[in-house]
Amino acid sequence: MKVGILGGGQLAQMLAVAGIRLGIECFFYVEEEPSSVLKKLGPIFIGKYKDEENLKNFASQVDVVTFENENIPFQILEKLQKHKSVYPDKNAIRLFQDRFLEKTIFNELAIPTNRFMQVNTPEDLVDASKTFSFPFMLKKRSQGYDGRGQVKIHDVSDLENVEQHYFGSSIAEEFVKFDREVSLIGARNREGEIVFYDICENVHKNGILHKTLNRQNDPLFGLAREYVEKIMLEINYVGVITLEFFQKNNKLFANEVAPRVHNSGHWTIDASTTSQFENHLRCILNLPLGNTKSLVNCCMYNIIGAMPKIEQVLSFENARLYDYKKLARPGRKLGHCTVLNYNPTDSSSDLEQLLTLQ
Amino acid sequence: MKVGILGGGQLAQMLAVAGIRLGIECFFYVEEEPSSVLKKLGPIFIGKYKDEENLKNFASQVDVVTFENENIPFQILEKLQKHKSVYPDKNAIRLFQDRFLEKTIFNELAIPTNRFMQVNTPEDLVDASKTFSFPFMLKKRSQGYDGRGQVKIHDVSDLENVEQHYFGSSIAEEFVKFDREVSLIGARNREGEIVFYDICENVHKNGILHKTLNRQNDPLFGLAREYVEKIMLEINYVGVITLEFFQKNNKLFANEVAPRVHNSGHWTIDASTTSQFENHLRCILNLPLGNTKSLVNCCMYNIIGAMPKIEQVLSFENARLYDYKKLARPGRKLGHCTVLNYNPTDSSSDLEQLLTLQ
Repeated sequence: MKVGILGGGQLAQMLAVAGIRLGIECFFYVEEEPSSVLKKLGPIFIGKYKDEENLKNFASQVDVVTFENENIPFQILEKLQKHKSVYPDKNAIRLFQDRFLEKTIFNELAIPTNRFMQVNTPEDLVDASKTFSFPFMLKKRSQGYDGRGQVKIHDVSDLENVEQHYFGSSIAEEFVKFDREVSLIGARNREGEIVFYDICENVHKNGILHKTLNRQNDPLFGLAREYVEKIMLEINYVGVITLEFFQKNNKLFANEVAPRVHNSGHWTIDASTTSQFENHLRCILNLPLGNTKSLVNCCMYNIIGAMPKIEQVLSFENARLYDYKKLARPGRKLGHCTVLNYNPTDSSSDLEQLLTLQ
Repeated sequence: MKVGILGGGQLAQMLAVAGIRLGIECFFYVEEEPSSVLKKLGPIFIGKYKDEENLKNFASQVDVVTFENENIPFQILEKLQKHKSVYPDKNAIRLFQDRFLEKTIFNELAIPTNRFMQVNTPEDLVDASKTFSFPFMLKKRSQGYDGRGQVKIHDVSDLENVEQHYFGSSIAEEFVKFDREVSLIGARNREGEIVFYDICENVHKNGILHKTLNRQNDPLFGLAREYVEKIMLEINYVGVITLEFFQKNNKLFANEVAPRVHNSGHWTIDASTTSQFENHLRCILNLPLGNTKSLVNCCMYNIIGAMPKIEQVLSFENARLYDYKKLARPGRKLGHCTVLNYNPTDSSSDLEQLLTLQ
């Protein structure tokens, strides 16, 4: 079985590693020179997404195509689907790469989300400030990730300092002071079999995911599952999907969907019978889905900006280190570390300090 | 960090996979054309072990050399160690590739083993039949694995049918009707830090490991640990080591040592914070050792002779399948499958039947 992956970051790497023991070979289509790790994991095709011939040639080598990143032009997947099965479907990309369409579908499916409106002009922005009052959020409709492409508008003076590129393709969102951020990861294969992982409780720092805890028997699991299932069925989704929520009291507000494997699910490699990566491969190859139950409590820390010394991390006996072998850059995710049998009261552990004081 | 591995079977593959997320690169030295999976996991050097120049060139590319198989001529490691660190040390190979030396060291360290004697001539064989009475075992001193190179001598008529190649390099062993077969896997790094996994309870069929269960809190763990520790300290061992025992009542009889990662420890990939493969890499690179505690009960089945259909195996939601992508041959280990949260009373499961009725 051969799977083509559009994109070559750590998510593509982890998909490929999950495939090794099942005999699934991954091929990668990347726009830039890939990492040394990726080169070891499968054949690499370097080209632009819009280079149709190159992409068609890539697709002809594999049984099915998927992607690790929703910021791929929707039209490209549309063309590619004429030659080869692509999962998730192009419609998932179209909906979830655009915050306005995404929020609109939440509304249509009666999935709560904080109030929003389109912002195309400075006048729209002023309207938003009246509708939502300060502070509120201004977000680009597309291409944002890890806190990029969004800005918090605190007061009238901020209205005038908004950068020009926000106009024409943004939304304003009511600012909700939430109690907790969570995500739910589900998987649906081509037969329509559906499974869910436990709730991921997420902590962000500077807009970037800092850590995730898997929460067994979370009281909001059932509600989150209901919302994700609605989306899956509405668009006949195939693959792993992640829905991020804000929680306030006992309500969940849908924030955004990632139509792919997700950083908040990295713990599933270590603390679940079947990782999100393996289940994604199973979904798109139409294999039966594997058990998603958490084996133990787990905490995942992202390593951002600089890698600590390996000896120091491994001196914590429960640490499982993942080094993506990427060049260090401020704000860049360079690796992650999971801790099994994690004690949630141990929030200021020495390991957390080592991983975050880089 | 670069590790050179002599040998290119599934154990080398699993070492390399364990290295990926730690940023450890593996290089392989193999005598024959390797599998398609191995080729993806790192640079391959094809050559004979006795081709000193080729081997030296290989060693010059890496930081440390190890092996996945103890049937490497001891003299070759001796020469190699002049150019590069090799772990485990050549002496481990010398002792444990030879059943006579192996049993002798058990005796020297007061580790119980069934009685044995050298068999060099047909007369020695007759002596053995008198000393041990029938039945007894005749085993080649070296190169035996998976039940090869050994024969059970039931009666006087068998004495005359022994193949010629057994003479000159065999031992006879008293036949002990044991209650259970177990193994203990330990790891010792260059600093002398030592860790152990839980007892592995092993079931063999036709001389080949059929299945392994990890046994948490096994009453014989302490005794087994004492024996393995004696060996490690006696020869200043570095790496993962496996000692196989026969159990009778509350006694353990040492059967044989594998100076390497071991088939009975495959469950550690799935049911332990740190697998035997990762800890072996940590040992030889002198990194701190990782937690070896079992996360859950686990059963590992070897898949021998023929691979079942992947869809059938994955329809068991707790199955974790490993396909080595080797050509099928009767008696050949082609893959394995672990089951997490295994219920030990479930011994005649449908999955076990699927995996063994091939």
